[in-house]
Amino acid sequence: MSDSELSDSEDGNLFKILLATDIHIGQGEKDAEIADDAINTFEEILHIAVEKEVDFVLLGGDLFHENKPSRRCVVKTMELLRRFCIGDKEVNFKMVSDPSLNFSQSKFPVANFDDESLNISLPIFSIHGNHDDPTGVDNLCALDELSTAGLINLFGKQTSLEEVNMSPVLLKKKNCLLALYGLGAMRDERLHRLFTQQKVHFMRPKENMEEWMNVFVIHQNRVSHGPTNYIPEKFLPNFLDLVFWGHEHECQISPMFNSEQDFYVIQPGSSVVTQLAEGETVDKHVALMQVKPGRNFNITPIPLKSTRPFIMRDLVLSETRIEPFHPKVNEKVEKYCTKVVNEMIEESKNKITGHRKQPQKPLIRLRVDFSGGYDPFSFPRFGQRFVHEVANPRDIVKSFKKAKEAKRREKNSE
Amino acid sequence: MSDSELSDSEDGNLFKILLATDIHIGQGEKDAEIADDAINTFEEILHIAVEKEVDFVLLGGDLFHENKPSRRCVVKTMELLRRFCIGDKEVNFKMVSDPSLNFSQSKFPVANFDDESLNISLPIFSIHGNHDDPTGVDNLCALDELSTAGLINLFGKQTSLEEVNMSPVLLKKKNCLLALYGLGAMRDERLHRLFTQQKVHFMRPKENMEEWMNVFVIHQNRVSHGPTNYIPEKFLPNFLDLVFWGHEHECQISPMFNSEQDFYVIQPGSSVVTQLAEGETVDKHVALMQVKPGRNFNITPIPLKSTRPFIMRDLVLSETRIEPFHPKVNEKVEKYCTKVVNEMIEESKNKITGHRKQPQKPLIRLRVDFSGGYDPFSFPRFGQRFVHEVANPRDIVKSFKKAKEAKRREKNSE
Ligand SMILES: [Mn+2]
Ligand SMILES: [Mn+2]
Ligand SMILES: [Mn+2]
Ligand SMILES: [Mn+2]
Repeated sequence: MSDSELSDSEDGNLFKILLATDIHIGQGEKDAEIADDAINTFEEILHIAVEKEVDFVLLGGDLFHENKPSRRCVVKTMELLRRFCIGDKEVNFKMVSDPSLNFSQSKFPVANFDDESLNISLPIFSIHGNHDDPTGVDNLCALDELSTAGLINLFGKQTSLEEVNMSPVLLKKKNCLLALYGLGAMRDERLHRLFTQQKVHFMRPKENMEEWMNVFVIHQNRVSHGPTNYIPEKFLPNFLDLVFWGHEHECQISPMFNSEQDFYVIQPGSSVVTQLAEGETVDKHVALMQVKPGRNFNITPIPLKSTRPFIMRDLVLSETRIEPFHPKVNEKVEKYCTKVVNEMIEESKNKITGHRKQPQKPLIRLRVDFSGGYDPFSFPRFGQRFVHEVANPRDIVKSFKKAKEAKRREKNSE
Repeated sequence: MSDSELSDSEDGNLFKILLATDIHIGQGEKDAEIADDAINTFEEILHIAVEKEVDFVLLGGDLFHENKPSRRCVVKTMELLRRFCIGDKEVNFKMVSDPSLNFSQSKFPVANFDDESLNISLPIFSIHGNHDDPTGVDNLCALDELSTAGLINLFGKQTSLEEVNMSPVLLKKKNCLLALYGLGAMRDERLHRLFTQQKVHFMRPKENMEEWMNVFVIHQNRVSHGPTNYIPEKFLPNFLDLVFWGHEHECQISPMFNSEQDFYVIQPGSSVVTQLAEGETVDKHVALMQVKPGRNFNITPIPLKSTRPFIMRDLVLSETRIEPFHPKVNEKVEKYCTKVVNEMIEESKNKITGHRKQPQKPLIRLRVDFSGGYDPFSFPRFGQRFVHEVANPRDIVKSFKKAKEAKRREKNSE
């Protein structure tokens, strides 16, 4: 990876790719307040892609939140894809691998931009995530509908549960060579086992093998949830240049170099807040990847401006001046929490970007530790006073134990 | 309507339209034997459209059997539409009405063949049926997904429950003018009431009003199921030239002239057997409609060749020589039924067309009247012996009362 931003080359040797993942369209759909958050940010992402004139968009899975997205979700997604991806703008790169290997499960084993009947201006490549994974005897997922309609290029589907064979999508823009490996989500334990059994194979192009920049899109646990319930980076082959890690929602937009494996890892994180948890407090981003011949690449983070503000704080009551045995302790606790939530609402205003579709009401999560003799109050009732100011009034406050939380973290970092 | 087939005009003034309806993709999907019957016939229909070089296909609703068709159905349907409807062949007619009136509920209020980003070779216009009707606050149906993807033109959706206003889709091919009115399925009682309240309005083009051939696509009960539970033809305005009646599955492919209303009615019927009932024994057809300037039109029936053979017979045991009080009567009855079913299987072979995708195992329905002291046997057990010869072994035989049936018919014909 080069340290500085690549200069826009006029010789057409520069690949520009937008990396985005875990868009979770349909997340919170039953809650009118937040129902459109994810789809609006997907619109922003496609808008960025067009504005930055990228060659294509690469998605890391979980485009949809539900395995069977509502008709509304599917229609709204198709509307955006038709609006942003179909048109006369020319696609200036070629797919040179055998598409029947990359899209073997489709009735149209051809990239949409190489189908002469279609008129694609902005190609999208995507793997599936665990939220939108294939099911049933036909092994179809919601993304297959988009793919069959010619709106996206779905790759990385596996047919066997006993072996993984990945043929890269080989893309060529003048002298710039890009090999795209994709693996749709599967159970972590299974993939972990297949790796240990040496049953995961990355095919490599025979010609000019060393000239291809190798990108691998994966949608699995990166953080350990038990010894075999994640994929250690050391399992991945070191011929890779960049691993694009989906599924993990925390935004880690600056590529991390794994010196043992000799590759970078980028984890863009979800584009929408799906859980009121610490990992989601990091500002949301997508990444512009620029690639030049010679496996020379560079990442520019692009902050998302349509994401709903999210503020989270912890409050340990025993560390405040409120006496647990004071006769009016309950009243005092609620008053204190109200004050803190109001501060958080104020703080959230710093996250207003001016984006036309950014929702203004923040998500607020105040975790309160009641240890030491304090009584929890009714959280939904507490939230009622914030109904006009907060997007999630019913669950602003959550009870937690700071000591336990600290232990959990310590354990995780081992 | 002209009596003889119109000659192929070389001046380009001839509109050719394929009429098909009630395709019921997904019907019987859980039964592997018949799961693909409907989709295979849809493929045949699209094949006919291309072969006959029609200008467009007009569908009368119930393209899908289920309101929420399975992913497999949606994907298979999209595959066919992408294969048959997208391509470089030019569309030689124009839509001259305001598409924002005809497609007001779509984010793309434009006919797909008039969208410069799309590359439509075979346009399809469709209304929705009662099987694939819009639901939910967004008033979306499965056809909206196809329409949003640019694969079909969905029209005839109504926004109000209290009034129906139909603006025709105005189509022009040189001097040939066609006004297409469409009304998606709604509850018969409601529409019946709106008609009696004069709340159903057919807008008419202001210019050259008399030169437009007026076709109306409707998906309602045509047969009376109670005084207000159908739409009498006399409710429809007599400026219409042809009413294309969907929903009724019996094929009545020759247009009937309603002399009081001064219009023709064509009822193509379903393209697949959905019920083992008498109406479905009529051979399935679609219709080629040819229109010339001066409201001069002609219908050519086209028999479908991929439809599964269906044979139905009635057997009144008291009219046979089997004595009800014979000690071996049960054995004799079953033997007799077996003989009849074998004859029916033989008869079904006359319906084998040689079409590559026509299923060979017939649907067989033997209705048996056990009146007069005969004991019904177990129909599923009876069917076991035909499991390799009949598509519906479990329900070949059905019990009925001939006397009742006759009464029911008499009543209906009143
Ligand atoms: Mn996710
Ligand atoms: Mn995931
Ligand atoms: Mn029907
Ligand atoms: Mn119907």
